[in-house]
Amino acid sequence: MKARVIVTLKAGVLDPQGQAIEGSLEGLGFAGVESVRQGKVFDLELSATDPVNAKTEIERMCEKLLANTVIENYAVEIIG
Amino acid sequence: MKARVIVTLKAGVLDPQGQAIEGSLEGLGFAGVESVRQGKVFDLELSATDPVNAKTEIERMCEKLLANTVIENYAVEIIG
Repeated sequence: MKARVIVTLKAGVLDPQGQAIEGSLEGLGFAGVESVRQGKVFDLELSATDPVNAKTEIERMCEKLLANTVIENYAVEIIG
Repeated sequence: MKARVIVTLKAGVLDPQGQAIEGSLEGLGFAGVESVRQGKVFDLELSATDPVNAKTEIERMCEKLLANTVIENYAVEIIG
């Protein structure tokens, strides 16, 4: 079973890396970029076959390792 | 207009960071994790209003800055 986890910074948390990318895009001539926020993606392959159990397990992985829940949100999507 | 860009390593490209995460998950007691691949997410806000033009512009940003197209794939999704 495949799953995708997307980890993004919570609103209000500063994102210097995103700001740097925004500046670089402007420097390259891309106008109209109002904001850039960078996050992380984890593509997981699991041996589990039950999507409900797999999602619960992945949420536990997020809480323990994949995301820093003080400053980050995560979203789990079972792909199939 | 909001858009999300997901940048992932191409198949066959080594991902030591993903492998480290896979090892850590096993160390934490999560069984059945067959593979972990890490990628990047960029959440963009653009002043553009036409989704087709915006998507083309973002694809140009990916080619120039956001992705290394030798080793990475990218996917652009207009969120609204």
